[in-house]
Amino acid sequence: MECGEPVRQVEVRPGMTAGALVDALGRAGAYNGGALARAVDLWQEMLSDPGMVRFFGLAGAMVPGGMGGIVSDLIGRGHIDVLVSTGANLTHDVIEAIGCCHYRGTAGCSDAELRRDEINRIYDVFLPNAAFVRFEEFMQEAFSAIPEGSVLSIQELLHHIGSRLETGILAAAAARGVPVYCPAIQDSMIGLQYWLFAQTHRVTIDAFRDMPHLLDCCFDARRAGAFLVGGGVPKNFILQAMLMTENGFDCAIQLTGDRPDLGGLSGATLDEARSWGKLAEGARAVTVYGDATITLPLMAAAVLERMEGRHG
Amino acid sequence: MECGEPVRQVEVRPGMTAGALVDALGRAGAYNGGALARAVDLWQEMLSDPGMVRFFGLAGAMVPGGMGGIVSDLIGRGHIDVLVSTGANLTHDVIEAIGCCHYRGTAGCSDAELRRDEINRIYDVFLPNAAFVRFEEFMQEAFSAIPEGSVLSIQELLHHIGSRLETGILAAAAARGVPVYCPAIQDSMIGLQYWLFAQTHRVTIDAFRDMPHLLDCCFDARRAGAFLVGGGVPKNFILQAMLMTENGFDCAIQLTGDRPDLGGLSGATLDEARSWGKLAEGARAVTVYGDATITLPLMAAAVLERMEGRHG
Amino acid sequence: MECGEPVRQVEVRPGMTAGALVDALGRAGAYNGGALARAVDLWQEMLSDPGMVRFFGLAGAMVPGGMGGIVSDLIGRGHIDVLVSTGANLTHDVIEAIGCCHYRGTAGCSDAELRRDEINRIYDVFLPNAAFVRFEEFMQEAFSAIPEGSVLSIQELLHHIGSRLETGILAAAAARGVPVYCPAIQDSMIGLQYWLFAQTHRVTIDAFRDMPHLLDCCFDARRAGAFLVGGGVPKNFILQAMLMTENGFDCAIQLTGDRPDLGGLSGATLDEARSWGKLAEGARAVTVYGDATITLPLMAAAVLERMEGRHG
Amino acid sequence: MECGEPVRQVEVRPGMTAGALVDALGRAGAYNGGALARAVDLWQEMLSDPGMVRFFGLAGAMVPGGMGGIVSDLIGRGHIDVLVSTGANLTHDVIEAIGCCHYRGTAGCSDAELRRDEINRIYDVFLPNAAFVRFEEFMQEAFSAIPEGSVLSIQELLHHIGSRLETGILAAAAARGVPVYCPAIQDSMIGLQYWLFAQTHRVTIDAFRDMPHLLDCCFDARRAGAFLVGGGVPKNFILQAMLMTENGFDCAIQLTGDRPDLGGLSGATLDEARSWGKLAEGARAVTVYGDATITLPLMAAAVLERMEGRHG
Repeated sequence: MECGEPVRQVEVRPGMTAGALVDALGRAGAYNGGALARAVDLWQEMLSDPGMVRFFGLAGAMVPGGMGGIVSDLIGRGHIDVLVSTGANLTHDVIEAIGCCHYRGTAGCSDAELRRDEINRIYDVFLPNAAFVRFEEFMQEAFSAIPEGSVLSIQELLHHIGSRLETGILAAAAARGVPVYCPAIQDSMIGLQYWLFAQTHRVTIDAFRDMPHLLDCCFDARRAGAFLVGGGVPKNFILQAMLMTENGFDCAIQLTGDRPDLGGLSGATLDEARSWGKLAEGARAVTVYGDATITLPLMAAAVLERMEGRHG
Repeated sequence: MECGEPVRQVEVRPGMTAGALVDALGRAGAYNGGALARAVDLWQEMLSDPGMVRFFGLAGAMVPGGMGGIVSDLIGRGHIDVLVSTGANLTHDVIEAIGCCHYRGTAGCSDAELRRDEINRIYDVFLPNAAFVRFEEFMQEAFSAIPEGSVLSIQELLHHIGSRLETGILAAAAARGVPVYCPAIQDSMIGLQYWLFAQTHRVTIDAFRDMPHLLDCCFDARRAGAFLVGGGVPKNFILQAMLMTENGFDCAIQLTGDRPDLGGLSGATLDEARSWGKLAEGARAVTVYGDATITLPLMAAAVLERMEGRHG
Repeated sequence: MECGEPVRQVEVRPGMTAGALVDALGRAGAYNGGALARAVDLWQEMLSDPGMVRFFGLAGAMVPGGMGGIVSDLIGRGHIDVLVSTGANLTHDVIEAIGCCHYRGTAGCSDAELRRDEINRIYDVFLPNAAFVRFEEFMQEAFSAIPEGSVLSIQELLHHIGSRLETGILAAAAARGVPVYCPAIQDSMIGLQYWLFAQTHRVTIDAFRDMPHLLDCCFDARRAGAFLVGGGVPKNFILQAMLMTENGFDCAIQLTGDRPDLGGLSGATLDEARSWGKLAEGARAVTVYGDATITLPLMAAAVLERMEGRHG
Repeated sequence: MECGEPVRQVEVRPGMTAGALVDALGRAGAYNGGALARAVDLWQEMLSDPGMVRFFGLAGAMVPGGMGGIVSDLIGRGHIDVLVSTGANLTHDVIEAIGCCHYRGTAGCSDAELRRDEINRIYDVFLPNAAFVRFEEFMQEAFSAIPEGSVLSIQELLHHIGSRLETGILAAAAARGVPVYCPAIQDSMIGLQYWLFAQTHRVTIDAFRDMPHLLDCCFDARRAGAFLVGGGVPKNFILQAMLMTENGFDCAIQLTGDRPDLGGLSGATLDEARSWGKLAEGARAVTVYGDATITLPLMAAAVLERMEGRHG
């Protein structure tokens, strides 16, 4: 075995940029700080390669936690080609896009009292029920604009919603033509609203209609990269998409707070994906363990600084 | 504040039953050992109440880890009324039911080498590719028996598969008429097989067709209980199902290895669900943190011992 | 790569013993359930080998959580030759031994209110301040029996305390002549009591006086095994003790809830200890991740059943 | 219950400073990103208050991971008044100070091979045995300069070592007169070296000699604040020091990767410390869960930027 570069003790300077801080973490190179710096290196490569199709997986309550702005910004800058999300993140994206807010709260409070005050809790974020009233109006109106008798894929349904919004992830994706997949759309408030709508309308959402398009994406990609925030359905759906091709992903980055030893896919190492062929044999891959409300902003600030310079 | 019962130091005896061990954990009553004992108490109540509809959520790679046998057994004994699962667990259930095996392996090995030897890894479990060849044969044959032009719900598709099997979760559920829901069925090998099938056949899987039936279950339930193994789509789909009714779940048990402070639903406390009305205000709820390959068997052995006696 | 034995789906039976349950986990063999079964196999070997010196590390708030009874029982049965503990566990052991109790409480309460009610909290365990009043009486009386001018090692001090008690870990260890080490004794209520005592007495506790005896233990051991509950000082002190000999530990078991990727010793894999020579090159080692209030009792019940039979 | 400020979606800008990034996390305010921003606010207050005595706890393999530079820098800037550390961090601090290096390695390698190549592993950091040869020379020489027959406290021993070094934590602390406590010094390579030395010399290290000085610090402090990196002995030793006074700490910050539900002190919430009186009733306290190789540098860069401006 050989030793690599020396671990350089991190030196922080007042006023240093996020990029300079990540550079310092890279010179230390240890544990998750080191992994974060290597992940920024790899992300920069992914974003600099015009032949690379970039998949982005979004799981965990990231939009209520304030991370949606980074995702819509990455879409706007052309850094995401295919998005796979949980239904919850898209629900909360719509809520913000129609002008409602999530609020800072606390995790240490009486949930029974919150219930009586009609406030829903997501760890330390509060969301008043009133937002869902406006959400219902918007969703029912949006669904009503779909011609009776249509058969839509989930991606088409989400594009239809996004094209009626002006800010946020769905709006940015619709504007740039970035497909948004959400295999378990039923498992969200969007799904419950659709169920209400479907009681009096005849529109079919074909669960499998998205797969040919997604798999074509994979077949057509010269090179493919995955950036995975959290695990769940988005992680698996992105990784399995490549299974049908001859190749696997060429590079992959995963931000997760889960752990591998429980056996679940969300915490599984990216190496495990290599055995399945989801990652190519020589693929580069980095996992950063931690809370994505810290790691994602730091990485995004650093990679944009590298791509666009300090005055970009 | 008042103190409860004294913590009794755990005394283990050679030959003690699983139920007696859980009783001892209950008399200590601390940390996750204490929570496990309280969860067994609550589970016993759920199973003893004839007016209780029992939902069971199954996430994480539980079938490859050997936990599928417990789930099919619980179905066979009438202890599960509605099952919501990830697609992966059902895929691996089919693989076992058609006579293929998962194998004990190791987490510390070269995944590139595994790839070359055509072995897929799930943490320390190995699954040779050969199993997927037989899986493909079975699935294509099963799908081919569906009449052209059909429109099916996902639950109907899974019942169709289960009725062609003799052992395992899907078989037990089909035999007892227990509905199995899997909102993200596309996100699994079953989904990829269906995509292959759909290239030459005309069968529609309507993503939302299951919701009326599931919600009717919730409306009809006098009392409802949830037993959640892992988080992900099964946890959310079960909890949100009750949102449309006046009531929430009356009791809930959650086995998870995730943590709450990351904000994601999988690690969220059950109290959080109270603020949304997914749990009723006075609902009893217990979370046991840990690996379900330890906690689920211990709890199942203890609750069956209590329900059926030591010579059941 | 080769596959091992097939994963056998776990079958639970009402009335099965803890040992039979662990056997079933072993036949599944996956994730932490499988690791737990392998750890019981290894523990049984350690306990069956008359040439093996058995070290036991005790960290985490195990005594308040009701696990102290298992440790004193293991000492009483001759299954522990050297104990290394945190000061906190020994403090709480004394508290129980002098007739005070820990109580079942809750983690979700107002700590300010607890403070006003003079109740100290350890996650969901409550300990009234009154216990510390009696603790102070006992400790001051015990210390006063040490002749002025003495120079003691920490182990001698703990033996002195244990010999004045009738139940618990320190009592069992004193009765059987099992040395108890506690390198950071100052970092505990025992330490604070000693500081009070030392204000008016002249007794010296030599921090390093224990090391020759401990290292002699290591030099003299034909074979050595370590059973580590939690990490912290006990884990490191045990593992480093073997560094000065030619050999490392021959086998090691670790129960921990920590994770390796943070770099800290508490979550470090036992393989890492191999690189340092703390474990012998061919040493067998198993880590079980999870809450020791579940894993330790289950493992202890199973190993005693194997050693002594079901009617032991 | 009332909602706080709206969650502002994080906006990252190329070239933004670490301080501006933390400000953005604060405006989102959710999960650990929000906690990190609140912790920086509190840290700034602690550092700006001339009547505040600042304790700093250092656990986990922080020096091998490159975080030692931040700690010595904080000492140099006068931001730490009392340091409590594990012995391991001080050992690795000496190793760096005498000119040896830690190296970047990998966590996925053969530890048996590392052993044969005489390389010690700390997760993904490598340390060749050669460093310990030089460490032994330095330590034996340093110990030899202590007059025979001396009785020293651990803090005095560490000051003696630090005064013979020019860079690093012990050197900075010795230069500024900052006391360094290490209750479990025996549990480290420094301890093993001392054991070697003590075989032929007569110097006594009195385990309790440090306590009067530390407790005087606590009695004298008008206000006291704690900054805890990791748990273990440093966290407990700092928090318990205040137990003997009328007051508890006025503010506390904790960076940890552990979890509370296992009952151990390392993962315990700071609220729990309130019930014991270790924190004052109205004390402000923030815990940030995550890897300190990410959170500590980001927080340190942000707080220095606030204290000294962008061109400090």
